[in-house]
Amino acid sequence: MSKSKQDIRMTGSANKTDHKRPALQIGLFGFGVVGEGLYKILLQTPSLQAVIKKVCIKNPDKKRNAPAALFTTNPKEILDDKSINVIVEVISDSETAWQIVSTALHNGKAVVSSSKKMIAEHLPEILALQQQKRLPFLYESSACASIPIIRNLEEYYDNDLLHSLRAIVNGSTNYILTKMFEEQIDFKSALLLARQSGFAEANPVLDTHGWDAVNKWVILLCHAYGIVVSPNALLFTGIQNIHSSDAVYGLEKNLEIRLVAQAKKLKNGKVAAFVLPQFVKKDDHLAFVKNEYNGVVIESSFSDQQFFYGKGAGSFPTASAVLSDIAALRYGYQYEYKKLRYHQPGELTDDFYLRVFLSFDDWKYIPRERFEWIEEWHAGDTRKYLVAVISFRELLNNTWWKENNTSLVLASDPFIEEIETQQVKKRSLELAGIIE
Amino acid sequence: MSKSKQDIRMTGSANKTDHKRPALQIGLFGFGVVGEGLYKILLQTPSLQAVIKKVCIKNPDKKRNAPAALFTTNPKEILDDKSINVIVEVISDSETAWQIVSTALHNGKAVVSSSKKMIAEHLPEILALQQQKRLPFLYESSACASIPIIRNLEEYYDNDLLHSLRAIVNGSTNYILTKMFEEQIDFKSALLLARQSGFAEANPVLDTHGWDAVNKWVILLCHAYGIVVSPNALLFTGIQNIHSSDAVYGLEKNLEIRLVAQAKKLKNGKVAAFVLPQFVKKDDHLAFVKNEYNGVVIESSFSDQQFFYGKGAGSFPTASAVLSDIAALRYGYQYEYKKLRYHQPGELTDDFYLRVFLSFDDWKYIPRERFEWIEEWHAGDTRKYLVAVISFRELLNNTWWKENNTSLVLASDPFIEEIETQQVKKRSLELAGIIE
Repeated sequence: MSKSKQDIRMTGSANKTDHKRPALQIGLFGFGVVGEGLYKILLQTPSLQAVIKKVCIKNPDKKRNAPAALFTTNPKEILDDKSINVIVEVISDSETAWQIVSTALHNGKAVVSSSKKMIAEHLPEILALQQQKRLPFLYESSACASIPIIRNLEEYYDNDLLHSLRAIVNGSTNYILTKMFEEQIDFKSALLLARQSGFAEANPVLDTHGWDAVNKWVILLCHAYGIVVSPNALLFTGIQNIHSSDAVYGLEKNLEIRLVAQAKKLKNGKVAAFVLPQFVKKDDHLAFVKNEYNGVVIESSFSDQQFFYGKGAGSFPTASAVLSDIAALRYGYQYEYKKLRYHQPGELTDDFYLRVFLSFDDWKYIPRERFEWIEEWHAGDTRKYLVAVISFRELLNNTWWKENNTSLVLASDPFIEEIETQQVKKRSLELAGIIE
Repeated sequence: MSKSKQDIRMTGSANKTDHKRPALQIGLFGFGVVGEGLYKILLQTPSLQAVIKKVCIKNPDKKRNAPAALFTTNPKEILDDKSINVIVEVISDSETAWQIVSTALHNGKAVVSSSKKMIAEHLPEILALQQQKRLPFLYESSACASIPIIRNLEEYYDNDLLHSLRAIVNGSTNYILTKMFEEQIDFKSALLLARQSGFAEANPVLDTHGWDAVNKWVILLCHAYGIVVSPNALLFTGIQNIHSSDAVYGLEKNLEIRLVAQAKKLKNGKVAAFVLPQFVKKDDHLAFVKNEYNGVVIESSFSDQQFFYGKGAGSFPTASAVLSDIAALRYGYQYEYKKLRYHQPGELTDDFYLRVFLSFDDWKYIPRERFEWIEEWHAGDTRKYLVAVISFRELLNNTWWKENNTSLVLASDPFIEEIETQQVKKRSLELAGIIE
C-alpha cells in the first residue's frame, strides 16, 4: 500500500470523530452538465464526505447555478491550495487537462479525470508520475463511462486467465450503425440523425474515424494485459466508409455491423489488438448493444463469456463513473496496474491473419496480390466486394484499405493464426486464374 | 490493511527471488468437475504461483485423473498442515463445508468457497470470524458464478449511490421458465426437460422453491447494502406454482416471467428486498436473460442501468470464479465489507406495498379483504386471477399466497411506497361491491 492510500484513509476516519472537515476537499475543473451534476449530488449526499471547495471555469460571464464565491478562472487558486486534496477534471480540451492533471499530481493531490484522449496520449508519463508520486489517479469514466470495466480488468480478470476482450466503446458510431441497419439509410443520413439526437459532436470525426475508440482501447489494453501502446501504433479505423450495400450484404446473411475494439491472446501467448468494423451474428452479445450503448464481452479461463452493458457516454453516465471514483478515493483506492507490474506484461503481435470483407468502387484500388487468398467476390455495376484472408501486417503497414471509399469489415470469425505454405501457394494459383 | 494481507503478498514477492515454493499452497476439498478442472488449470498455469498440495475426497475408491499421493480422506491432513496456506472448498454438503471453512480460518488459512447455502446460513459467524482472524475468505462463485457481482458491489457501487439491484440468480428456474414460455409447456414438463438437459438437480426443490435464490440474495444484500439477514427472514418463493395460464396471461400482454431477486432503496432511505416471480417487459434487461444464464441490473446515482450477464451455475462458470478468487489471493485481496463497516449499514423495511398478479383455483383460498384494492380480475372455469395492491407485510407474515396451488407474480411496476388513507377507503368500498 502506498503512503497516500493510508493518508487519505486516515483523514477519513479522523473525521469520524471531529466531524469538522470532510475527508475529500475537491477542486473541480469544468462546470458543464457533468461538473454541475457532481456539485449537486455531493451537496445532497453528505455521507460521501466529499465537498467541492472551488470550481475553475473558462468563462466567468456564464450564469451558474451555484454561489459566485465557488468559482475562479485561475487554475492556480485550486492547484496551489493545500487544503484541496482531490482534483476532479471534467473538461474537454485534452492538453489543458494534461497540464492540470500533471500539476495536481506533482502538487500531491489525488486526481479523478474523464479525459480519454489525454490519458491515452500521455499514458507512459501518467504511469511514471503515479509511480513516483504514489497518488491515486482514477479515470473509470474515460472508457465505457458507466460500465466499471477498468476496475474489473484491473481487479478481477487475471492476465493469465483473460483469453479475449471484445467491446463496443463508442456510443456515437454505434448509434449511427444502428440507424443504418434499422432504417436502412446511408452513413451521412444516419450521422445527421445522430447529430439531431445529440449523439454526435458538431465535428464528429473523432468518433466516426475511430479516434475516440482507439483512445479508449489504449486505456483498456493497459488494464487488461499490461500493454502500453500509443494510439497511433494500433491498427484502427472507424465507420466512415461503411457503405449501405455493406449493411445489405450483412442483412442477407443475418449479420449486423459493429465497430468492435478487440484483444485476443493467441496460441503463441501474444496479444492481437485492434479496432475495426465487424460483422456480428445475431446471437453475439455485441449484437444486443444498440444505439448509444456500450458493451464489453470478456472471455476468461473456464468461463463462458461475461457481458457488461450500459451507457457509454453522455453527461450522466460520465458523472456516475466520476462519482464512483470519488467514492473509491475515500478508501484510498488506486490502480496498481497489476498486469504491468506484478506480471509479465502482455506483448502485442502482428503475426496473424484476418478474414475480411471489402467493398469498393473499382478493382484498381485493391492490390489483389497482397491477399493470402480470396474466398468470395462479387462485381456489381457500382459497388464491388470480396471476402478474403489477409495478413494483419499488410493492414497495419498500409492504408489503401481505408482510402478511395473502400470499406473494410471484419468477418464474424476473423482470426486465422497460422497458414500452411502449401495452402497459400495452392490458393494463390487458384486466385491468379479467377479474377479478370 | 490486515496483517494477513501483507503476509500473503510478501510470501508472493519473496518467491520472485527464490523460486522455490509458489506463494499459494492449496488444500482442496472436493474433486468433482470443478475440483479436477482447477487442478488441471493450475498445473498448466505456473505463473499463477498456486499449486494444489493435497485433495480431500469422500470416496477413495473412485478412479481419479491425478496421482494417488495427492489424495486423502482425512480432512485433518490438510487443515493441520502448516505448509498449506489456502483452503479451496468446492463440496456440496453445507454443514461439512462450514466445519472445513471455520476450522481453516481458525488455523490461519485463507479460504475460497463456493457453498452459497453455508455462507448464507452462517453469515454472522463468518463476518465475526473474518474480523477476528483478519484472513481472506472469498466466495465470488457462490452468487451468479462467473459474473463478478460480489466484487463489483463490494468495490465499485457505493452504498449511498446504489438505488436498486435486480437479478436472476438461479439458472435452473430460469431455464424452466424459458421453456414454459418458448415451448408453451407446463411447469412439470419444463422441469423434466431441465433435468434431461442437466439444468436441474435430482431433488430440484432447493432451486424451484427459491431456496437457492434466497441464499444468494442474502450474500449479495450484505455486499450491496451491508444488510445481514437470515434467509428465513426474507420474503421469497420460487416458481413451483407458476401455472401455464400465467404464461398465457403474460404473452397476451407481451410480458415474460422471471424469478427476480431484488432490492430497492425506498424514499425513506430503507431497503425493500425479496425474491419473487415477476412479469418483465420485453425491453427489461432481465428479459434478455434466458435459459440457464444469470443477469444483474444495477441502478445507481446518475447512471442509467448497468447490466451484468453470464453463466450463473455449472462446473465451468463456478471454477472460473474460484480461479479468479485464487488469483486475487496473490495480492492479499479480501472483502472489507465496506457497506457494513465504513457506512451506516442499510436497514430492511416492510413498510411498502406491491402490485401483484395472483392466479388460483378457487376464491375461497384468497382473503380478499387483505388487499388494499383490486385492479383487475377474471374468473375462468378452471383458473381465476386478479391484479391487486397488497401490503408487503401481509405477504411477509402469511403464506396463503403460495399455498393451495395459488400463484403470485409481481407486476412489472410493482412498487407503491405510500397509499393515502382516503384512496384506500374509497377503493375498499368499491371492492366490497364488485366481487361476488
